Amino acid sequence: MPSDVRDLVCPPLSVIGILGGGQLGRLLAQAASGLGFRTHIFAPESSPPARSVSTYFTCADYEDIDALTAFAAETDYITFEFENIPIDTLSFLSSRCGVSPSRDTLSITQDRLFEKEFLQAHDILTARWLRIDSRDSVIAAIASGADGILKTRRFGYDGKGQWRVGGNRSALPDINFRDMILEEVVDFSCELSVILARGRDGVIVSYDPIRNDHRDHILHRSVVPSGVESSVEVRARAIARQIADALSYIGVLAVEFFVGRGGDSDQDSGVPLYVNEIAPRVHNSGHWTLDACCVSQFEQHIRAITGWSLGDGSRHSDAEMINLIGSEIDDWQKISAAAGTALHIYGKHETRAGRKMGHMTRLMRRSD
Amino acid sequence: MPSDVRDLVCPPLSVIGILGGGQLGRLLAQAASGLGFRTHIFAPESSPPARSVSTYFTCADYEDIDALTAFAAETDYITFEFENIPIDTLSFLSSRCGVSPSRDTLSITQDRLFEKEFLQAHDILTARWLRIDSRDSVIAAIASGADGILKTRRFGYDGKGQWRVGGNRSALPDINFRDMILEEVVDFSCELSVILARGRDGVIVSYDPIRNDHRDHILHRSVVPSGVESSVEVRARAIARQIADALSYIGVLAVEFFVGRGGDSDQDSGVPLYVNEIAPRVHNSGHWTLDACCVSQFEQHIRAITGWSLGDGSRHSDAEMINLIGSEIDDWQKISAAAGTALHIYGKHETRAGRKMGHMTRLMRRSD
Repeated sequence: MPSDVRDLVCPPLSVIGILGGGQLGRLLAQAASGLGFRTHIFAPESSPPARSVSTYFTCADYEDIDALTAFAAETDYITFEFENIPIDTLSFLSSRCGVSPSRDTLSITQDRLFEKEFLQAHDILTARWLRIDSRDSVIAAIASGADGILKTRRFGYDGKGQWRVGGNRSALPDINFRDMILEEVVDFSCELSVILARGRDGVIVSYDPIRNDHRDHILHRSVVPSGVESSVEVRARAIARQIADALSYIGVLAVEFFVGRGGDSDQDSGVPLYVNEIAPRVHNSGHWTLDACCVSQFEQHIRAITGWSLGDGSRHSDAEMINLIGSEIDDWQKISAAAGTALHIYGKHETRAGRKMGHMTRLMRRSD
Repeated sequence: MPSDVRDLVCPPLSVIGILGGGQLGRLLAQAASGLGFRTHIFAPESSPPARSVSTYFTCADYEDIDALTAFAAETDYITFEFENIPIDTLSFLSSRCGVSPSRDTLSITQDRLFEKEFLQAHDILTARWLRIDSRDSVIAAIASGADGILKTRRFGYDGKGQWRVGGNRSALPDINFRDMILEEVVDFSCELSVILARGRDGVIVSYDPIRNDHRDHILHRSVVPSGVESSVEVRARAIARQIADALSYIGVLAVEFFVGRGGDSDQDSGVPLYVNEIAPRVHNSGHWTLDACCVSQFEQHIRAITGWSLGDGSRHSDAEMINLIGSEIDDWQKISAAAGTALHIYGKHETRAGRKMGHMTRLMRRSD
């Protein structure tokens, strides 16, 4: 496929292919249809949440070459809702269709080691870390004082694939210690995320930075404005922009930060800002943009990958987003009646503990 | 089907059946899926705009009893996107499934004569009108000074089925003069609409009144706040509420008004407020609620018919909605790049003159 065909702007009615059928795929499909696109969900599950709002659906494994071949032939542009798509799948699709974010970006961001090395190469601060490939290397690290979190390099999410080690803990988890990193625990005052979109032309639009609270390793609450000093927000936005430019990124990108301690109230330059994670996709901490911005992160992602101009991402209201996890969704009747509240339910057929079933966003008049 | 089953609140994942597959059906389906519902579009066209965003689709005529039987069996609650559904269809479905708005409401609002009689019976002001059943009755009316618009009683929309007669016009249109009414032309300063939702419990939430401009009999522009004196707005809201209560209405209802002349600036009580039309459905003049309210008219309609609490319909931003008619949609690239602008494209396969292809809403900081 000649590269110039892929550079064409996708007009309305084009078919946007989305790998992954969870709530992010569903919200992406809804945003795409708002711009007059048709959508095609590709997922291994037979009835994922995104299926019921999309135009076309393929149920197949991500390694199914026949299904991928047909998918690429039937779609005008392809994206994905989560970063754990096999790299080979993206390579294959990229040889046949436009795909954003790129295979190269994904190969960095789906591996904690490569991501840390990428950030280090760009002089971007992270928690200190060590590559771990054996039980002995963990023992040696702990012996020399390491106190941190052991994380699998790949396929972790929501705290899965993570173990606290060192400090005064004596036992090690009973796991294979291959392909991990050991990350120092940093002392932070809060978690902040920056969500931006970068278009094919390199134009970047970033949303207002978000303060996030987690419960049991799952995002519980996101608040905008963040309440963090504006000079810190400016630095966070600049770092996110630097990352997007360095990756020649196309689409929506989320960067999670730990806001460290150490600055004094008049002078924030001493506050360390650690990048915790890069997510090459729309992000849970940006769900408030559906209700508090003219153009949401989901629409912005679709605009970016299809070559459209990015939309206006400015915030018209203050917002507090709360995830509805597991049985919390059972309160839908009470939540739906609350003033100033937008409720989003993902249409999942089964409620399970720890599963994201929906979210609510409380809107308030802009305070700034 | 026992009435108590129909009175049950529909939980998420229920299937909402929608008769009609145009842009209103599409926007209703999208709103329903936002609350976790599945959707089933029933329409006579093979590939209407709503199809590509809905879970299920039936292509059949509105008189197809077998298709209607299956549709009622497969859905949990039924509504419609436009008022020209055959009454017999609604009667049939109502015997098998919950349906809102009701058959009785539809039988009034889909006939200009019945609608005028209903309004008259409730002492609600309209333009003066005459029932017309023959060419002779038109000639007699004109001879006695009538200057007005001849309208078919049924199935008119966007100025179709309307002819200006009387005044200094000598010729009559070459039509069958059965089942028409002749409406006096009123002198008005502007058109106003009120959109409200009435829940199963009789609770009413109304949106801020809207000022509307038409071009070639098609809505061109809707603006909120309306700029009309607040005492006039209060009266308009009260009339809309009176209509909804009188109809024991369930769902979203739109009432169009002509704001007459005659009041002075200090005293509006002399301003006549004529009801022009009642639309028993979501309405084009309420599209701005998608972007300027916490809960849009589309979601509000779904909430009302499914027995949910109505949501917060308050306006967080000022808004100007512009319809994109026919080839105006060709400017999508320019429009999509405009600041503060939300663009909605309906995914219609063919652009035709006079066809509503999409709309844009410009958001501005609340002025009041």
